[in-house]
Amino acid sequence: MKFQISVLLDYRLPQPIYLMLQVEAAALPGEQHVARSRLDAGTPEHFARIAAPDGIGERIWVRCGGRLQARYSAIVEVERRDRPLEPLAQVPLHRLPPGVVQYLNESRYCPSNQLVPFVEAEFGHIAGGAKIAAMRDWIARSFTYAAGTSDTGTTAIDSFLARRGVCRDYAHVLVALARAADFPARVVSAYAPLVEPQDFHAVAEVFVGGDWHLIDPTGMACAKDLIKVAAGRDAADISFLTAYGEAQLVDQRVSVKPA
Amino acid sequence: MKFQISVLLDYRLPQPIYLMLQVEAAALPGEQHVARSRLDAGTPEHFARIAAPDGIGERIWVRCGGRLQARYSAIVEVERRDRPLEPLAQVPLHRLPPGVVQYLNESRYCPSNQLVPFVEAEFGHIAGGAKIAAMRDWIARSFTYAAGTSDTGTTAIDSFLARRGVCRDYAHVLVALARAADFPARVVSAYAPLVEPQDFHAVAEVFVGGDWHLIDPTGMACAKDLIKVAAGRDAADISFLTAYGEAQLVDQRVSVKPA
Amino acid sequence: MKFQISVLLDYRLPQPIYLMLQVEAAALPGEQHVARSRLDAGTPEHFARIAAPDGIGERIWVRCGGRLQARYSAIVEVERRDRPLEPLAQVPLHRLPPGVVQYLNESRYCPSNQLVPFVEAEFGHIAGGAKIAAMRDWIARSFTYAAGTSDTGTTAIDSFLARRGVCRDYAHVLVALARAADFPARVVSAYAPLVEPQDFHAVAEVFVGGDWHLIDPTGMACAKDLIKVAAGRDAADISFLTAYGEAQLVDQRVSVKPA
Amino acid sequence: MKFQISVLLDYRLPQPIYLMLQVEAAALPGEQHVARSRLDAGTPEHFARIAAPDGIGERIWVRCGGRLQARYSAIVEVERRDRPLEPLAQVPLHRLPPGVVQYLNESRYCPSNQLVPFVEAEFGHIAGGAKIAAMRDWIARSFTYAAGTSDTGTTAIDSFLARRGVCRDYAHVLVALARAADFPARVVSAYAPLVEPQDFHAVAEVFVGGDWHLIDPTGMACAKDLIKVAAGRDAADISFLTAYGEAQLVDQRVSVKPA
Repeated sequence: MKFQISVLLDYRLPQPIYLMLQVEAAALPGEQHVARSRLDAGTPEHFARIAAPDGIGERIWVRCGGRLQARYSAIVEVERRDRPLEPLAQVPLHRLPPGVVQYLNESRYCPSNQLVPFVEAEFGHIAGGAKIAAMRDWIARSFTYAAGTSDTGTTAIDSFLARRGVCRDYAHVLVALARAADFPARVVSAYAPLVEPQDFHAVAEVFVGGDWHLIDPTGMACAKDLIKVAAGRDAADISFLTAYGEAQLVDQRVSVKPA
Repeated sequence: MKFQISVLLDYRLPQPIYLMLQVEAAALPGEQHVARSRLDAGTPEHFARIAAPDGIGERIWVRCGGRLQARYSAIVEVERRDRPLEPLAQVPLHRLPPGVVQYLNESRYCPSNQLVPFVEAEFGHIAGGAKIAAMRDWIARSFTYAAGTSDTGTTAIDSFLARRGVCRDYAHVLVALARAADFPARVVSAYAPLVEPQDFHAVAEVFVGGDWHLIDPTGMACAKDLIKVAAGRDAADISFLTAYGEAQLVDQRVSVKPA
Repeated sequence: MKFQISVLLDYRLPQPIYLMLQVEAAALPGEQHVARSRLDAGTPEHFARIAAPDGIGERIWVRCGGRLQARYSAIVEVERRDRPLEPLAQVPLHRLPPGVVQYLNESRYCPSNQLVPFVEAEFGHIAGGAKIAAMRDWIARSFTYAAGTSDTGTTAIDSFLARRGVCRDYAHVLVALARAADFPARVVSAYAPLVEPQDFHAVAEVFVGGDWHLIDPTGMACAKDLIKVAAGRDAADISFLTAYGEAQLVDQRVSVKPA
Repeated sequence: MKFQISVLLDYRLPQPIYLMLQVEAAALPGEQHVARSRLDAGTPEHFARIAAPDGIGERIWVRCGGRLQARYSAIVEVERRDRPLEPLAQVPLHRLPPGVVQYLNESRYCPSNQLVPFVEAEFGHIAGGAKIAAMRDWIARSFTYAAGTSDTGTTAIDSFLARRGVCRDYAHVLVALARAADFPARVVSAYAPLVEPQDFHAVAEVFVGGDWHLIDPTGMACAKDLIKVAAGRDAADISFLTAYGEAQLVDQRVSVKPA
């Protein structure tokens, strides 16, 4: 399916600072095709485009002061399909692709080891992709989507206890639960047409059955509607905008609709 | 200089489990040369050797039950030299090599953003490599090396407050301080001849002046005596042995001496 | 000096719940005299007035649903004087009044033991009340008053690292620093005429020289302008309003001016 | 039933420091009767006995250097009976005795608010003492008693996640769960004859049905076998020995047997 994305980022910058933008849909052959893409970040002092990890998308360094007004628009066709998790087997650790192994490890917002006792008690009897599906369903059943109850410092443990949060928190919890059961798992920033209110979105991706599987634990999007931007260990790696200094939000708008 | 390393890892494993070993000196042309290397892990059910991140060394998956007795011995020649940090400039963010950028980010044991206010107050007036040297000296001046006061869950924030710990904690604190000043920084597991008691060692590596620089904030080793094993965001990535299940220590010995 | 206080608390309560109010100026002979006091909490299902700890003020239980609109007004004369801390001696632990001893202990938002290394390094060479004054001055020098950067879960450690916050956070940090040097210290909720914007205020109280001394680490108020409401180990004990269930803020106003 | 208690505390003190001892069985008419009691703490520089909070027992300040060797022995008759929790009603908040109200609040090691979502999901449908019994049974079913897996910094949240620990951790978890359901709850230090290995013990006490009820969530002791020493918000208040400075354990022995 084809989607049209438009984004506006407008920030006031009291001092000249560096910012990293990770807002562009990634070109991923077989998964999603970027038909048209345009990023206009004005005339910053510096502008550098670099490859992002895992071959997923690019990152942009911008250095500017006074004001950053960045506009991004794209047409992206998503070719990914939703695949049921239940039939998939867990990959034995020694057969994991080397680049995937790091996603077993604890990270800043997904300190997964602390969830091992819960995961063993609650999901220990389930194997393979069905275990991941059970985790996803447990979150859907137990959590309340609630804006304003978490912030950029909230960890998967905080959210696990609070049983509420926004997309970022849902993704962190599923990633941490999956890692606690020795599944590689990462967080993916994305666009999705049915997220209300329209905003940057975050979902989980779990390595099961020999492949990465996109899962939106909030239930707002399915794999076939998700446009991937970046992947990382957790939110620390994939912020749409990271400011290395003070940046004051003026306006921010995201629109994703069928093209 | 040439060193001889011998390591014994002896663990009791009540259940068959996976273990990851990261104990071998890395072959790093121009930095350190592995003249001889031998790893004997018995006859595990599975044994798989995979590349480690950043082109530094290899990781070994082992699956076994009952007992793991692994012996590692090697002769390694270190060609690295100690270089003073003070003359080096901080690399502007947009000129960092893409693979280095992830080491600016917060990680499990180095939640560096929380140290930004301290770093600005204490080191804000110093620029370039001299800033890193000042951080290293502040740690040396303020911290007490004390075994048994920290554990595998201790973060850089815990250690920053406690002002004490072991090599892992010292490394975490320097890495977190450096990242808080926008220097890429990582933790390196290593062997060193003068560490007392002889044990696995951990140090920091900071990217400054266009290159990685090894720094041992405990002051026990210098760059020219350190034999690198693995590098990662923090201890979560570079444990000598990671057990995916229960493993009971029977014996562990490390010997590093001039060859 | 005489002050006139008016307070409005207006909350929407989706379900009938209990609320605890601690908003009334305490009657404290020799310290502050309540000339006139009136609390109108509407017609709640239950209303119970109980003594608060340490003989400081009273607490009010209210049970109601739908809406809580509480109005409080009072005329209070403060007789307390500002006394310099520097000449005062630290009371030897075995001579502390029994009721004061609990304020040496760690509490929810003042986990003071973690600050012992900093306190010893920074203030270890200073004795008596001068040590408390040095802590107060260090906070004034190092911290920035900033609304919206902390919340009800923020601890003294978070604030110590962030070097910013609101009155509650300043009070928590001073209390934690004092306890880390074995001075009993507690948090006091108060009214003060010069707090901008006018709001509920929180300050520290440290036991030194045989008596409690009010200290406002934000520098916004002095002891002679503070009208005490309640005292406790930290904010967990002295909230102006504690809701045992969901309460949505509609309006809240505080006015304190010379009468 | 009558018990004989003998305790030895032997500590090396590199510097003269203050220590607080809370080791003596409390005299509690109707609950436990102290028939004989003797505390010998040598000849410290200072020795002061003060009342402990809530009228439960006494605390002893000792100041000494070099060595502390304290011996305590007593004969205590416990008159308390085990009473089933199930028939008891939860006391409406506005009817709680004023001195009990503080035990609803969060404390250093029992940050109970974070457990509210779990408590509502798991125990929300149960009322009164049966809710406390269900919490106690959930802990018994879910936790593993394991020495060496926690330390003096471990909170109820850490233990709730780890699902293991020692008596102190079990008590913290039950206290935090109870407070999360608006039951006043405190931690009690105690002696008990069947604790293996014999050691200082910690249990929970919950206010339900108008009275405090002793509960040992480890299942090692019942109310009629517990000899109370001290009560407090959590372990921060009731340590058997609190050292205000460095104290190195030489020997510590506890013996409790039927007299």
